[in-house]
Amino acid sequence: MLFTDFGLDGPYTGQMKAVLHQMAPGIPIIDLFADAPVGNPKPSAYLLAAYAAWFAAGTVFLCVVDPGVGGTRPAIIVEADGRWYVGPGNGLFELVQRRARTTRSWDIDWKPEHLSASFHGRDLFAPVAAMLARGEPPPGRPHQDKSDRQADWPDDLGEIVYIDHFGNANDWLEGSPTPACRKTCRRGTDFGAREDVQRAAAEHVFLI
Amino acid sequence: MLFTDFGLDGPYTGQMKAVLHQMAPGIPIIDLFADAPVGNPKPSAYLLAAYAAWFAAGTVFLCVVDPGVGGTRPAIIVEADGRWYVGPGNGLFELVQRRARTTRSWDIDWKPEHLSASFHGRDLFAPVAAMLARGEPPPGRPHQDKSDRQADWPDDLGEIVYIDHFGNANDWLEGSPTPACRKTCRRGTDFGAREDVQRAAAEHVFLI
Amino acid sequence: MLFTDFGLDGPYTGQMKAVLHQMAPGIPIIDLFADAPVGNPKPSAYLLAAYAAWFAAGTVFLCVVDPGVGGTRPAIIVEADGRWYVGPGNGLFELVQRRARTTRSWDIDWKPEHLSASFHGRDLFAPVAAMLARGEPPPGRPHQDKSDRQADWPDDLGEIVYIDHFGNANDWLEGSPTPACRKTCRRGTDFGAREDVQRAAAEHVFLI
Repeated sequence: MLFTDFGLDGPYTGQMKAVLHQMAPGIPIIDLFADAPVGNPKPSAYLLAAYAAWFAAGTVFLCVVDPGVGGTRPAIIVEADGRWYVGPGNGLFELVQRRARTTRSWDIDWKPEHLSASFHGRDLFAPVAAMLARGEPPPGRPHQDKSDRQADWPDDLGEIVYIDHFGNANDWLEGSPTPACRKTCRRGTDFGAREDVQRAAAEHVFLI
Repeated sequence: MLFTDFGLDGPYTGQMKAVLHQMAPGIPIIDLFADAPVGNPKPSAYLLAAYAAWFAAGTVFLCVVDPGVGGTRPAIIVEADGRWYVGPGNGLFELVQRRARTTRSWDIDWKPEHLSASFHGRDLFAPVAAMLARGEPPPGRPHQDKSDRQADWPDDLGEIVYIDHFGNANDWLEGSPTPACRKTCRRGTDFGAREDVQRAAAEHVFLI
Repeated sequence: MLFTDFGLDGPYTGQMKAVLHQMAPGIPIIDLFADAPVGNPKPSAYLLAAYAAWFAAGTVFLCVVDPGVGGTRPAIIVEADGRWYVGPGNGLFELVQRRARTTRSWDIDWKPEHLSASFHGRDLFAPVAAMLARGEPPPGRPHQDKSDRQADWPDDLGEIVYIDHFGNANDWLEGSPTPACRKTCRRGTDFGAREDVQRAAAEHVFLI
């Protein structure tokens, strides 16, 4: 499963898929989100946790919302309730880990021949996700501390983090919209285009 | 083939594909439309009929434009000229059936272990589409009456129901735009972005 | 790999994929770009060349940016450094060919049973791409002249041709933005929506 802020139209998702098909032939690749909050791991973490639990154990999630690419944020693998996650250690997996009954994490120490400065999704995370999808052990060192966690983030985030194609907004408070958002959240088919919703709600939505 | 109003970016299409890959491994899944008129089965029915006839016999179409999800509209399977359709019985397949030489329909009586209130596409229609794609018989009871039909809908719909990525609008009058739409319909590459077209034409287009 | 200006949501990409799956079963199909500059082969040619070189030898690129479909522009196959390209001979492959160490080209002389006036991507280019993906020889006559080339196009194009999902613009000057564009090009996550960027930059971007 792919979870990114890359968009589907452009070249980034396609390049990651090319790596996955080459390194893990025959294993289906599915787009879960390509429009996670851009460059914003915190709301993305709540969005990922809200959807990931539906999928079967053994599923591998390749997740890239990575504003710190090329910087010092670690590259990690997380196992939570039998599902696997690969991506930047910037809090993106915090809620998945916190809500899991059992979880482990690793710092990736596998290195590609060529690592671009800005596209670790293609060069680092996609190959590691392919290894996990092939059933190989995590290519990294187990975490001994909590340096990959974000203990100060709340258990639930009382803000809208995503507006879907239908104009429904979700604040991921376990499915219960706050009174403040109820009015604007479910206008449903009143909206002809998602863009209008995004524009109307932009001040409230992505500024977490 | 998938025909929905879900959009591709967000989580709904991905969850349906996960079900299909799991229940019908190795069978290709292709997006035909993810941007059918939102919540509007009537124009969607003309759009589907305009495109479905091109595909080979045996193709299974998983179609979800379903504003009445969770209500009383039936869940149906349609066979029309050798192609299979699964989705809500809200008229979405009316034009496909009407234009077919031979057609049959079934009320789905297969039930999933868990059926969510709002996502029958994932929980009900996708599993049934997977069964059909695997070559299994329709899991339902044959229709004895016409309760799944919409006899009052016209044979052709004299209105624009879809504007494509190029800014071309189509009224599905068997390919012949009305004079009124000819002027605005084929401005082609004059448009930088599809959104502008949607905005400009919104009053005329989706208000059927 | 697919490189088109078709968009992903609508029916065109899906129909091409149906042909490819049927004629070359089991071979992965990946979207590289579905939002190349609409109807504009010149900037698209620079965009394609900037990305194609990353892919493995043997990759087949099905490329359709084809404003002259149905007219006199030829239908061609290009081999450049071991990668294959199929599409209209309107300059779309000029930069790929110019930057390759070795290149050859063919005029397609295979004809489908039915060739629509406006959708050669589905009826002509997709079947030929499937043949090449299956390892068959190019179904055409080798070019003896340079009639498929655009010698007057510059080696680098000093203009923005694509704005990605993050609001980054690229002018494909081998990665070095011009001073004029540097200011507007990398506003990154300041942008909530790609549409805003496209609107703001539209005058400068697609008018090459």
